Amino acid sequence: MIKEKHFYPKTKNLAKVSTGEAKDVSKKALKSEFEVISEKLGRVQELIFAEAKHKVLIILQGLDTSGKDGTVKHVFSATNPQGLRVVSFKRPTELELRHDYLWRIHKQTPERGEMVIFNRSHYEDLIMPLVHKTLSLKEIRDRIADVNAFEKMLVREGVTVLKFFLHISRKEQASRLRERIENPEKHWKFELSDLAERRHWNDYQKAYGEVLQSTHHEDRPWFIVPGDDKNLRNLIISTILLERLEKLKPVLPAFDGKTLAKIKKELKDL
Amino acid sequence: MIKEKHFYPKTKNLAKVSTGEAKDVSKKALKSEFEVISEKLGRVQELIFAEAKHKVLIILQGLDTSGKDGTVKHVFSATNPQGLRVVSFKRPTELELRHDYLWRIHKQTPERGEMVIFNRSHYEDLIMPLVHKTLSLKEIRDRIADVNAFEKMLVREGVTVLKFFLHISRKEQASRLRERIENPEKHWKFELSDLAERRHWNDYQKAYGEVLQSTHHEDRPWFIVPGDDKNLRNLIISTILLERLEKLKPVLPAFDGKTLAKIKKELKDL
Repeated sequence: MIKEKHFYPKTKNLAKVSTGEAKDVSKKALKSEFEVISEKLGRVQELIFAEAKHKVLIILQGLDTSGKDGTVKHVFSATNPQGLRVVSFKRPTELELRHDYLWRIHKQTPERGEMVIFNRSHYEDLIMPLVHKTLSLKEIRDRIADVNAFEKMLVREGVTVLKFFLHISRKEQASRLRERIENPEKHWKFELSDLAERRHWNDYQKAYGEVLQSTHHEDRPWFIVPGDDKNLRNLIISTILLERLEKLKPVLPAFDGKTLAKIKKELKDL
Repeated sequence: MIKEKHFYPKTKNLAKVSTGEAKDVSKKALKSEFEVISEKLGRVQELIFAEAKHKVLIILQGLDTSGKDGTVKHVFSATNPQGLRVVSFKRPTELELRHDYLWRIHKQTPERGEMVIFNRSHYEDLIMPLVHKTLSLKEIRDRIADVNAFEKMLVREGVTVLKFFLHISRKEQASRLRERIENPEKHWKFELSDLAERRHWNDYQKAYGEVLQSTHHEDRPWFIVPGDDKNLRNLIISTILLERLEKLKPVLPAFDGKTLAKIKKELKDL
C-alpha cells in the first residue's frame, strides 16, 4: 500500500532513505498494478483538461541517470498529448541568463486545464550553486525563500504543485552509466559531464537533503521516490499523482437543462 | 494499400472527394493495422527526438467535429510526451491581435528533435475571412502568398511540414453534433457557435477547396483525409506520417571509437 506520507522528506540525510534496492514484489506484479493506475491517471488528466479549471505542475528532479526521462515516457503514457506539456530545462540560454533565474520557469507554468511536467526545474538553481559553491550560503538561503514564496503563490493561484525527487544509489548510477556506454542505442543519453558530476556525489546528496527539507510543504510537497527499481518508481509516482489529482474532483462540464433544451431544438433542423 | 498521393488535393471541388463513408474493411482489421503503424510511429519519433536533427510540424485542419482532437489523442498515443508538443490555436488573444497573424504561429514552430502538432493553425486566417468575407479577395491572395513563402522558408530551414485536412460529410457532422448533446460526457466538446458555423457549410467547402489547392506543394503537402470513419482516418494519417518520417532516416547518435575508448577507461574507476 503506497501512502504519500511515506515519501515525504523526513531527514536531511538521504543515505538513510531507501533507494528501493531490495524488494519482495515481482516485476510482473508491479507492472500490472502500474497498468491499472496508469489508465486511471489518463482518465483523470482528460477530466482536468476538459474541465479547464485546475492547473497541475509536476516537478521531476534527480541526479544524472535517476530516471527523469523514463518517468516522463512511462508514467504519462496513457495521458492525452493535448493537455500535457513537458518542459525540459537545460543549461540556460544567453537570453535567459539576462533575466532572473525564475523568469524562464514562470513562463512555463501551466494554464487552466493543463498538466505540465518540468524535467529539471528551478531546483537546479539551488542545487548546482550548493554543490559547486558558486553562491554563498546567504545567497542560497535567499533563493530558498524565493522558491518557497514563488511556489506558495502558484498554489494560492490554483496550481497543484507536486515535486518528485528520484532517489538512486551510487551503485545503481554506476550501472546505468555503464549500460549507456555498453549499449550503443543508449549512447545519446550519455553526457561526458555526468562522469565529472558523479565525483560530487556526496555534495549532491547533501545539497538535495538540505533543499528538499527546506522547500517541502504539505500543499507543495516533495516525494523522495526510491528510483533503483524502475517499475516500483513508476508505480509510486503514478499512485501519488492519481490520489492527489482525484482529490481535485475534476468533472466534465455539462449544459444546464434550459440551454440543453434550446440546443436540442436547434439540432432538429440540422 | 495507402499511398500518400491518393490524398493530395486534386480538385477544388471537395464534394467530389471521398469522406470515407462506405467501406469493406472491418473495424477490427483497421484497428489492428493501426496498432502496428502506431508503434512504429512512436519508435521513429523517439529516434527523431534522440537525434535532435530534424524538426517536424504537423498541421491539422478541418470543420468542427472533423476529428482533430481525436487524431491528436489516438494517432500520437504511442509517442513519447517528451519531444512532442501540441499547440491548439484558439481565437487570438488581445496581445496576439496586436501583431501580424503569423506572429503567434511562428513562435510555436518546432526546434530540432521536436515534433509539433498544430490543432488549427494559420489556415484559420485564410479560411475564416474567406467564409465570412471579412477580407477582400486581393487580401486573401496576399495571405496565400505569405503562407506559401513562410512554409517554404520553414522547409528550407529543415522543418518537415505535413498538413492534414480532415474531410467529413455534412451528414456525419450532424450526427457528431447530436452525439455531443445526447451524451453528457461530450457536452464539453459542444460549442454553440458550431451550429452557426454549420450554416456556412458550402462556403467552408469552397474556401477549403481553394486554399488546399493553392498551398499544396510536394515538399509541404496537404492530405485530404476521409474523416467519417475514425479508424480509417487514424490509419491513413499514421501511415502517411510514418512513411514521411522514415524517409528522414533518423539515427541514434553514437560515440566514435576513440571517444568510446576514453569513456570506457573512465568508467572503470566508477
